[in-house]
Amino acid sequence: MIPRYSRPEMVAIWSPETKFRIWFEIEAHATTALADLGVVPKDAADKVWEKGSAATFDVERIDAIEREVKHDVIAFLTHLAEIVGPEARFVHQGMTSSDVLDTTFNVQLVRASDLLLKDIDDLLAALKRRAFEHKLTPTIGRSHGIHAEPTTFGLKLAQAYAEFERCKLRLIEAQREVATCAISGAVGTFANIDPRVEEYVAEKMGLSVEPVSTQVIPRDRHAMYFATLAVIASSIERLATEIRHLQRSEVLEAEEYFSAGQKGSSAMPHKRNPVLTENLTGLARMVRAYAMPAMENVALWHERDISHSSVERMIGPDSTVTLDFALARLTSVVDKLVVYPENMQKNLDRLGGLVHSQRVLLALTQRGASREDAYRLVQRNAMPVWRGEGDFLTLLKNDADVTKYLSPAEIEACFDLGYHYKHVDTIFTRVFGATKA
Amino acid sequence: MIPRYSRPEMVAIWSPETKFRIWFEIEAHATTALADLGVVPKDAADKVWEKGSAATFDVERIDAIEREVKHDVIAFLTHLAEIVGPEARFVHQGMTSSDVLDTTFNVQLVRASDLLLKDIDDLLAALKRRAFEHKLTPTIGRSHGIHAEPTTFGLKLAQAYAEFERCKLRLIEAQREVATCAISGAVGTFANIDPRVEEYVAEKMGLSVEPVSTQVIPRDRHAMYFATLAVIASSIERLATEIRHLQRSEVLEAEEYFSAGQKGSSAMPHKRNPVLTENLTGLARMVRAYAMPAMENVALWHERDISHSSVERMIGPDSTVTLDFALARLTSVVDKLVVYPENMQKNLDRLGGLVHSQRVLLALTQRGASREDAYRLVQRNAMPVWRGEGDFLTLLKNDADVTKYLSPAEIEACFDLGYHYKHVDTIFTRVFGATKA
Amino acid sequence: MIPRYSRPEMVAIWSPETKFRIWFEIEAHATTALADLGVVPKDAADKVWEKGSAATFDVERIDAIEREVKHDVIAFLTHLAEIVGPEARFVHQGMTSSDVLDTTFNVQLVRASDLLLKDIDDLLAALKRRAFEHKLTPTIGRSHGIHAEPTTFGLKLAQAYAEFERCKLRLIEAQREVATCAISGAVGTFANIDPRVEEYVAEKMGLSVEPVSTQVIPRDRHAMYFATLAVIASSIERLATEIRHLQRSEVLEAEEYFSAGQKGSSAMPHKRNPVLTENLTGLARMVRAYAMPAMENVALWHERDISHSSVERMIGPDSTVTLDFALARLTSVVDKLVVYPENMQKNLDRLGGLVHSQRVLLALTQRGASREDAYRLVQRNAMPVWRGEGDFLTLLKNDADVTKYLSPAEIEACFDLGYHYKHVDTIFTRVFGATKA
Amino acid sequence: MIPRYSRPEMVAIWSPETKFRIWFEIEAHATTALADLGVVPKDAADKVWEKGSAATFDVERIDAIEREVKHDVIAFLTHLAEIVGPEARFVHQGMTSSDVLDTTFNVQLVRASDLLLKDIDDLLAALKRRAFEHKLTPTIGRSHGIHAEPTTFGLKLAQAYAEFERCKLRLIEAQREVATCAISGAVGTFANIDPRVEEYVAEKMGLSVEPVSTQVIPRDRHAMYFATLAVIASSIERLATEIRHLQRSEVLEAEEYFSAGQKGSSAMPHKRNPVLTENLTGLARMVRAYAMPAMENVALWHERDISHSSVERMIGPDSTVTLDFALARLTSVVDKLVVYPENMQKNLDRLGGLVHSQRVLLALTQRGASREDAYRLVQRNAMPVWRGEGDFLTLLKNDADVTKYLSPAEIEACFDLGYHYKHVDTIFTRVFGATKA
Repeated sequence: MIPRYSRPEMVAIWSPETKFRIWFEIEAHATTALADLGVVPKDAADKVWEKGSAATFDVERIDAIEREVKHDVIAFLTHLAEIVGPEARFVHQGMTSSDVLDTTFNVQLVRASDLLLKDIDDLLAALKRRAFEHKLTPTIGRSHGIHAEPTTFGLKLAQAYAEFERCKLRLIEAQREVATCAISGAVGTFANIDPRVEEYVAEKMGLSVEPVSTQVIPRDRHAMYFATLAVIASSIERLATEIRHLQRSEVLEAEEYFSAGQKGSSAMPHKRNPVLTENLTGLARMVRAYAMPAMENVALWHERDISHSSVERMIGPDSTVTLDFALARLTSVVDKLVVYPENMQKNLDRLGGLVHSQRVLLALTQRGASREDAYRLVQRNAMPVWRGEGDFLTLLKNDADVTKYLSPAEIEACFDLGYHYKHVDTIFTRVFGATKA
Repeated sequence: MIPRYSRPEMVAIWSPETKFRIWFEIEAHATTALADLGVVPKDAADKVWEKGSAATFDVERIDAIEREVKHDVIAFLTHLAEIVGPEARFVHQGMTSSDVLDTTFNVQLVRASDLLLKDIDDLLAALKRRAFEHKLTPTIGRSHGIHAEPTTFGLKLAQAYAEFERCKLRLIEAQREVATCAISGAVGTFANIDPRVEEYVAEKMGLSVEPVSTQVIPRDRHAMYFATLAVIASSIERLATEIRHLQRSEVLEAEEYFSAGQKGSSAMPHKRNPVLTENLTGLARMVRAYAMPAMENVALWHERDISHSSVERMIGPDSTVTLDFALARLTSVVDKLVVYPENMQKNLDRLGGLVHSQRVLLALTQRGASREDAYRLVQRNAMPVWRGEGDFLTLLKNDADVTKYLSPAEIEACFDLGYHYKHVDTIFTRVFGATKA
Repeated sequence: MIPRYSRPEMVAIWSPETKFRIWFEIEAHATTALADLGVVPKDAADKVWEKGSAATFDVERIDAIEREVKHDVIAFLTHLAEIVGPEARFVHQGMTSSDVLDTTFNVQLVRASDLLLKDIDDLLAALKRRAFEHKLTPTIGRSHGIHAEPTTFGLKLAQAYAEFERCKLRLIEAQREVATCAISGAVGTFANIDPRVEEYVAEKMGLSVEPVSTQVIPRDRHAMYFATLAVIASSIERLATEIRHLQRSEVLEAEEYFSAGQKGSSAMPHKRNPVLTENLTGLARMVRAYAMPAMENVALWHERDISHSSVERMIGPDSTVTLDFALARLTSVVDKLVVYPENMQKNLDRLGGLVHSQRVLLALTQRGASREDAYRLVQRNAMPVWRGEGDFLTLLKNDADVTKYLSPAEIEACFDLGYHYKHVDTIFTRVFGATKA
Repeated sequence: MIPRYSRPEMVAIWSPETKFRIWFEIEAHATTALADLGVVPKDAADKVWEKGSAATFDVERIDAIEREVKHDVIAFLTHLAEIVGPEARFVHQGMTSSDVLDTTFNVQLVRASDLLLKDIDDLLAALKRRAFEHKLTPTIGRSHGIHAEPTTFGLKLAQAYAEFERCKLRLIEAQREVATCAISGAVGTFANIDPRVEEYVAEKMGLSVEPVSTQVIPRDRHAMYFATLAVIASSIERLATEIRHLQRSEVLEAEEYFSAGQKGSSAMPHKRNPVLTENLTGLARMVRAYAMPAMENVALWHERDISHSSVERMIGPDSTVTLDFALARLTSVVDKLVVYPENMQKNLDRLGGLVHSQRVLLALTQRGASREDAYRLVQRNAMPVWRGEGDFLTLLKNDADVTKYLSPAEIEACFDLGYHYKHVDTIFTRVFGATKA
């Protein structure tokens, strides 16, 4: 997480201020629950809420105490006692530090997910708009980087839409996975605290109860969470790679928006580099990398060890902040992408009609040619075209072995671009539920 | 995937025989659908089914053809034509190789998932049985490898049960993700094939339709799948690590089953090494590693490149076969785990009662001691115990500053082990839905 | 490791036959050393060599014994006793299984490295030959996929040569790292065996002595080894990616060799897909992935646990066999690469001279224009070219603000392609030590 | 990189101030070289040095310019012109941004390596001191977490010393790999700049010349660098894991230093948790993870794309700062580790003499028992000991089948602990070059 690739709203989730505020809420809710159960005085709980809600927690003061006691939660509670007064001794009764820390981490991840879901929604909206805009913009489909058959630019974007819609569903599921609360004590047995406190706090914090914890919330939940972010990052990389390809000098079917004052290169003023999508490719690598330590965090020793903590202090912010930034950047790129339909058409026409070869092949077999014969006939007319010696349509019409099966008109019909787009509506309906925006 | 860590049923899913059988089914179903649409003769479709269903595909023959034509699907279709006769020319009409290959891969992953789900069910059954068996077997809970508070061995297993139940749900979801079928042609536009063929084949193969494909089924689905297997592997590692710890010479609370004829070490006959769970730790590393290339596979170029293929030829079998083996091995370890409750009790008693310190701390604060005072009082009596100079209970009773707050009986009550287990039923109900097996 | 991506010589290193032969050699050398030290009878050592050298170890028999005793080295020693007779009891005296297993693994890695080094030498030879062939073949250099300045195709290959020469040096170093032998007993103290036995066996097996082992050879050596293979794989990916780009329909500056009988696609006969380099991209992902578990293997518990073993049974063969295959495939691709200098020239001319813009910029500043002015002058003439409205040279000559600084001849001189190649010899000398092949 | 896990000296290497200072030095040296070659006026070069050396670069000002021109190097050069005046137009002549950026990154990595090498030296010194201190402190060696044979605590540390000495050599090599300079222009052809400028700057900056660059310095160098850091991190994890094991309640052979004011747990005052080494385990996971994106950075497109940049902005600081912190923390842990030789002895005696079983086994075979018989005899006496029914020595002496081969004195001799340490000096000499500190 570095400022260059960060957005303030997500960064704020990981600030000490936010963290201490969540700590306070958890502690205060727990105190209320304990008061409801008659374990601590009702007045004390009220006092905690009253004083704590009004207070601004002093991060530097807490840090100073932590340097002395070398324990972050004790430091916070000490500071809280400075604010609340003697009633503070009823706070944290029967709880263990991890009850606060783990539940807080999950609250942060849930909030981060809310932002990320909004990011994906924005991206989906941009993709949808551009997909409908270019629903029937002809472009060549490429497999292996080689021209294959015509598709439309809208279909490319529809694919991306469907992919990010899957990402959204995965993230909702991953968010649900980490939306748990544990207030279960030193080894998760509720020895010193009633399970009803956990239930109360969970509900108040918008979480569900962790069915069985062991001081810590089990880290398979978080492994799944960060793995999900890694998959989403991989989908970002896919779309970014597509755009980088389209912006290549020789292809130039689309370009990232290039602002007026922007200088592309200190030396080559004509250059417009797809630096945003290249950047996204790099950011995707990072978010993907963070999944590995999250998975290694699962196998904690016995009821817990604290090896996960340093990892999470890093990947918690790094992963969510970077993904938030990347999604927003991708949305902006899609939104403002400069599309060149004329270049798409030019590239489509580039190979002298060879993109229609499969259709010719099919027509031949439908008229009775064996697959092998049809293949041979298509191949022998395709090769000269490939070498720049003639166009495919003319050559086919002049090949007597071909015209045995197909009339000139039938051959020409194979070169009708519209033929390829007859099912675009079907696909758009599948993806967007409608054929119109 | 090596024989030593493989089970035949999973291996069979990845055999050439199985693969070609699935290819045949997809091709034959597609031919039937084409016949229903009037594109190819009904008789031809029947003939394909009749001859193909009866035939055994000759793997060596197909391989020989592939060496010549350097294309696996063409090789198969050529062999199929040898079996079916001239009607074979109606097979694969308007389809592209990836239609067959990608759908087949998904069928294999779906079947592999069925086996893995059965594996998890077996593991869950073993965990549940042992959890109830040891529901109230006292054992020390450890955080940081250090004695914390009492828990029960059943609770440890209940935690594992809850974790693998989550794994099961994740796998069901991951299976659903890859259970799609694409018969959409060279760039996914259905230019040469009716989308209804895809719908027909999907239904017959137990899959859903891929909403928008681009010659290939998008690889974010598979990235999510293999990431999910990686998370499951991490949970295996967690339980394996727990058992390895329990079998340590100094702990010896449980041991892997040791068969009569087995030799532990060529040189140290008394040694019983937790080799199965150590092995599982290694296997988990492998399954985890396979997730990375699966994620790198997502960003294929344009409508497809074939870089994913070599990866999937390896991780398809390697990941599922290894995880299948690991789950089965873990189930066997859990099922036959030799548990030593007497050693658990011995370890629990090892620290002269210090495990009850938190309870004493709490009792002191509840009687009005400040947190700081309580902490100090507990600490000054705990330290001699730690140094082996006395037992905690006696020291506390003799500390006048303690007895100002707590009577001897009240101090003794803090040492009641049962106190820690009062909510075991609550947790078991949460996890298993019942307090009894 | 699957047959499709394997070559027999590397596979043979990992066969049971090879493994048992190495086991035998280690055991027999150790017996000789023990005999030299007077610990076991000289005759026994001779008998072991005589019988063992003549014998073919029966893999199935050893496996059958292992299934019974569940210990691979004991199984082998039992079989060896069947071959050697009673003198076999002097074999393995004071040794532990890992002495044999770990040293064997290292012997296999050393041999695998020898093959890999030969692979790299072959690749270097092919790169060098093609680099000199195309030392001055003009081609456009691209940054961000956008045309930048002219380079030569030979320079591209020289870069690859330099990169793989670094890979070679790294592999030599990695091989040296794993070329160690440990015969040090159960915890590495030589309690039951003289260190001179280790020294003797090490020398005979072409290894150096592991200075301090702990039953096992420390796994940081292997982590470094597999990490090095991963880096080499990444360099393979780089060159493969370059070729994939060059073969794109719109670029088509080079193509993988396409054999006469080969069919590119079942449906699009004109297609020549860069499937070999795409395949290499995938294989690189796999070799890279194997580095992670190798690193996780380092932190074995205490003097050893066996979690590394399953990992190494997989990545030992998988990583070396895959890399061997990939290097050989890449060599073949480079060796037979079809290069299209005319297309390179065509692409170079594609942007109407804009690639010379930096030179114009420089010439302007050298004649006294401020950087900002020069930039503005270049930019305003470049933009029309970019939009297809004229060529750069003509526009510059017609721009009075430009001709204030540069004469028409001076402007033209900026468009001299040869200018860019004046230091090619310098670079070739740096890389190949010579300017001629 | 977060403050909690950072040390100021390493953080400073990655500050904007340091970065701009290195940029300045590279630009100024290049200007001097250009002046020496007569390309720019000597006075201009002197002015640049004079003004630039005296100036403090204004990070906020540069950032403000960058926000406008969206190019970091142009922003810096603009600011430099503000400081230097009109002579600044001679700066950066014929160079491209990457010449500055890539060379700077390498300078930072070289400096970071110097710090890391110093860290390793400190660690080695601590390990050596403690190794000699405990050269003959008896402790049980464990394989699989199970007692094996006696070793010494000094040998454990000697192993760690040898491992980190290897790490040092690897880091020196990795540092050498990235210590290169490129001043070669837009695609690395030196079209607009003389290679002698590169040579001059390289020498002045303490780097070697990159033999062939392509606008960028090839990223296989950096992949190797970060992979090396990842291996070092894995070795940190190994030693950290050893210490965590030793501090377990049941083992307690060593403890992390526990400062007077430190509170271990808010609730369990007797707990001394190995939080530092647990933390190191987590940090190792992070440094390991950073190697993956570094490897993915290798395959840049053509002569360069900028996808590596975001990755390196993160892992450059994150990886070196984290490793620096981890090495220093580990050194402190080793330096102040509280060792309990009495507990080591207690654990050694724990298994009633079973640790001597291999020696008995060997003695029996040396007296003529077959391996199988010896194994059986040892096993039948070991099993009762294992069950707590007697001690091994007594049982062996009372076993007539044993005493057929060995006299009571000979059996007793097998239980001599000193026997295991006779080669400690050999190993220390191998590792430290001496038997005394």
